[in-house]
Parts: sequence; C-alpha cells; structure tokens
Amino acid sequence: MATPTTSRRTFLMASLGFTATKLIKPFSHQVLTAGQVIDRIKASVGIPWREQTVDNLIAGTPEIPVKGIASTMMATLDVLHRAADKGLNMVITHEPTYYSHQDRTEPIQQDALYQLKRSFIQQHGMAVFHFHDHWHGHRPDGIATGMIRELGWEKNIDSQNPRLFTFQETPLAQFAQGIASKLTIRTMRVIGDPQLPVRRVMASWGNVSLMPGVPYLAQADVLIVGETHEWELVEYVQDAIASGQKKALIILGHLLSEQAGMKYCAEWLKGFIPEVPIEFIASGEPYWRPDLPAK
Amino acid sequence: MATPTTSRRTFLMASLGFTATKLIKPFSHQVLTAGQVIDRIKASVGIPWREQTVDNLIAGTPEIPVKGIASTMMATLDVLHRAADKGLNMVITHEPTYYSHQDRTEPIQQDALYQLKRSFIQQHGMAVFHFHDHWHGHRPDGIATGMIRELGWEKNIDSQNPRLFTFQETPLAQFAQGIASKLTIRTMRVIGDPQLPVRRVMASWGNVSLMPGVPYLAQADVLIVGETHEWELVEYVQDAIASGQKKALIILGHLLSEQAGMKYCAEWLKGFIPEVPIEFIASGEPYWRPDLPAK
Repeated sequence: MATPTTSRRTFLMASLGFTATKLIKPFSHQVLTAGQVIDRIKASVGIPWREQTVDNLIAGTPEIPVKGIASTMMATLDVLHRAADKGLNMVITHEPTYYSHQDRTEPIQQDALYQLKRSFIQQHGMAVFHFHDHWHGHRPDGIATGMIRELGWEKNIDSQNPRLFTFQETPLAQFAQGIASKLTIRTMRVIGDPQLPVRRVMASWGNVSLMPGVPYLAQADVLIVGETHEWELVEYVQDAIASGQKKALIILGHLLSEQAGMKYCAEWLKGFIPEVPIEFIASGEPYWRPDLPAK
Repeated sequence: MATPTTSRRTFLMASLGFTATKLIKPFSHQVLTAGQVIDRIKASVGIPWREQTVDNLIAGTPEIPVKGIASTMMATLDVLHRAADKGLNMVITHEPTYYSHQDRTEPIQQDALYQLKRSFIQQHGMAVFHFHDHWHGHRPDGIATGMIRELGWEKNIDSQNPRLFTFQETPLAQFAQGIASKLTIRTMRVIGDPQLPVRRVMASWGNVSLMPGVPYLAQADVLIVGETHEWELVEYVQDAIASGQKKALIILGHLLSEQAGMKYCAEWLKGFIPEVPIEFIASGEPYWRPDLPAK
C-alpha cells in the first residue's frame, strides 16, 4: 500500500514524531492534544500555512486532551451542545464561533450570550478550531469537493475549471428545484427567466462578492452562490438580464452552500487522526418561510 | 400658510436665488439643473451635509437641465429605462448605480455591462444622484417614515424609540406572513419558533451588521432587517434562541425593506421642487422561489 499518498503521509507523521505503528492503532489511550491535531492538519493540508489567516484556535488551549473531534459548518451553540453530548470535545468549524469572520470578541466582550458560549466551551473542556482559509486552499478545494459529492456532480465538472459544470439542458426553475431538493433548502432565491435553458453552471460556494462574481457569471448561464450583497452582485445580475444577457443567479443560503464540505472534512481528518472518534455534525437550514413555518 | 415649515422653506429657497413666485409656478420653462436639485436637497434635508458620504452625483453633470425626477430604491438598468421612457432624466436612488456602496467604478472599468449602463445614462442626458446617508440622517429617517406608512404602523411606534413597535400579541409565523403580504415578498426568511408570541418589534431597514443588530435584538421579541450576514447576526440569533431566549429574526430582502422610503422621498421632493414632474419608480422583488417561479 506504499502509494505516493501514504508515503507522504507516513513521512509527514514521522516528521511530527508519530510512528506508523501508533497511527494505525485507533482510539489508543495515548493523549492527543488539540495542538497536535492542528499540527497534523497543517502538515496534511498540502499548502503552506498562511501568516494572515482566520484559521486559528478560537477557544481552548493547544494542551487540551482531545477525546473526539466534531467537524461542522458553523460552531453554533446548538452544535457545541451536540458535540459535548457525544464526547467530541474538539470542534473544527468552517465558519466563525463568535459572530465575525475574524472571531473578533472586543465588540461583544460584555454580551451575556457571548459569555455564556465561552463559558460552555470552557466548562466542557472544549477546543474550537476555525478551519476556513486552508480548507478552501486545499487542492482540490475541500468545500467544493464535499459539495460536488453531495450534489452528485462529479461527472459534470469541467476539465479546465473545477468551479464550472456542464449539464444536459434544463429549464432554470427545474434546475433550481433539483438543487433545493438535494440540499433540502426551503428558502432558496433565484433571479432569471424560469424557462432559461441551463447548460453551463458556475458554482462559488459560500459568500461571493461583486468580484469575482462578475467574471464567474460571464462564463456560465447560471452562477450559484451561498450568500451575496443585494446592492452589488444582485444588482449586477439584474442589469445583465435587463441588457438582454441570458443569465441567472441562484442563492442557496450560506450554510447549505458549504456544509457538505465539512462532512467531507470529517472523512479527510480520519485519514491522519486515527486515535479518536471523528464525526460530522450537520445543521439544518436556519430559515423558514412564513407560508411554511418550521421549528 | 406662513407655518414655520413654509417660512423656513421660503427662506431657504430665497437664499438659493428662488422667489416664492417662481416656486409656485409648476413645470415652468425656466431651466432647473441637476446641481440646483442637489442644492435644494442639501438645504432641505435638515442636517449638515457630511464630508464623507456616498451621497454624490454618480452620473451626469450638475449643469444637466432636469426635465423630470424619478426617485427609486436602486438605479438598475430597468429603472433607468423606465425613467427615460417617462422623460424623467434625473434619477435619485437610495442604493448604488454601479454595484458598490461607494459606486467605485475602477474594478469594472473594462466591463461591458458597466460601459453599457454608463453610455445609456449619457446618451439619454441623464443625471443620477445617490441619496442614502442624508435620507437616513433626516429626522425622522426618511426610509423609516416611508416603510412605517407602507406597513400602516404609525400607531405602533414607541414614543421613546422610532425603531421600536408594539403590537397586539401575534404568533411569529402569522406576524411574518402579514408583512410578506403587505410588502409582497416571495422570499422572506424567518428564524425562530413559529408560535413565538410577538409583541415588541425592532425594525432596522436595509443592511444590518452584528452591531447594532445585537442591542436591537435585546430590546424586542423580533428584529426585522433587510439583509444581514449569515455568519454574523444570523449565527447570533440562532445562539440566542438555543440559549433559551424567546427571540426571532425576520429578513425581508434589502429592496423591499427600504423601497417605500423612496416612495415617500418623491413626496418630500415635491415640497420644494415644483418646476418638474417627480415620480417614484418601484421595482419588484428581485428573487423568486423554485416552487413559485416568476418572471
């Protein structure tokens, strides 16, 4: 089984002080710390670790002994509760813990909810690691890989551009409905002619700004995003359509536009962290529609 | 009719070189320029004009003769077409023309759609004025005034806080449905227990960041916003609910959360610009749902 991949992994693990023997012994009693998990992620992600990044230990210390790992899209209080209930005391989250991309806590230092969340993490001996930039930086992008699997779009990927997909021509409304069903989205928002024939699709998971939204739209019939500003890219798409361009925009919602990427992350982590259980914790769509209320 | 208001207006107009006689003669043949319209807005808005502001002449020159004025929420290409068709060659828009809050054109200088929009404005002798900061700065907030009228919430305003409203207790889903019907919103998104009794409502029209979203939420059962980041305020509201707080968030969509404020703006403009026709140009919600496609 000495494939190039395992060779590299064995080399990396050895360089971190692990032996292959230790690695293949799952759930051993040897202590694994949060710092060691982060070191292994850094060694395995395949790109140099950035100096400027949001990928930091947001709560807890590197010394915390890890009993289990939860990968998740967003470390909400609900997710933290569910992780703690399962004995998974290290949470690896794609989105922020403290309500800002940089997890800046100064503005909310005095906020009772922030204090409650911080205390919950402390009292349960938890560590929370923000894993955003380098999971996108992984080649192929870890989030995109998970989303493509979830949607079953592996065969539709363009050979030149991993964000671009080609489909058999389908009217926009039907195409959008198909995604909404697969990802169980209640509040998907679509712009464009419902009858627009969809063939080429550009997908940019998560938040998308005007740039690179504009060049993305230029390359496809439909641009799919998680979240975007109404006064920027949405206005641009409306104008593109008003000018006669045959274009559309599908807004999935941020969570469901990336979540499957963290499901895949749990699998990826298992490849080099055999000592503790690793589980993906899913969240449902945050929103409901007034005509279809949901708890 | 020498009320304090008309006195002040007459004084202001006189100081700008207009006489009362000229003012009360509608649609006269005397040339009114875009620069004069802006000067009158500055003189009438009731707050000092800011040095740092997005409220600028985005397209056209101050010398352009104004034949008619369109007030609108967002100067999309569709709105510009409709204004030009009606002979309204000055557009006063609350949201950007060029896809960014600051109407920054450098990133899109080479973009064909930007060039087409700019050419359309030039070829039709139009002027576009961004009227955002000072319309919010007007007391009471011009956008809020229009929205409250549209919703018929005048009797519900809190005497101490113009963003706060009190209602007879209504379950959240029903309350949200009522707003969706009044504002004709197809893609409203709601977070919270559908049965939550709604009594106190905080409304912050347009885009709302984590701050001041957090203190707004603290003061009411429900916070209503136009648009907000899922990884900031949405996560915070989810956590508040998970922690046991009886709270909810209603996301209207940006356009319909402020548009009636620009309907009111047309009325307001008529109070001190009698020479030319002034019309509000409405836009429909940009989005549709896959299960309810719309053109």
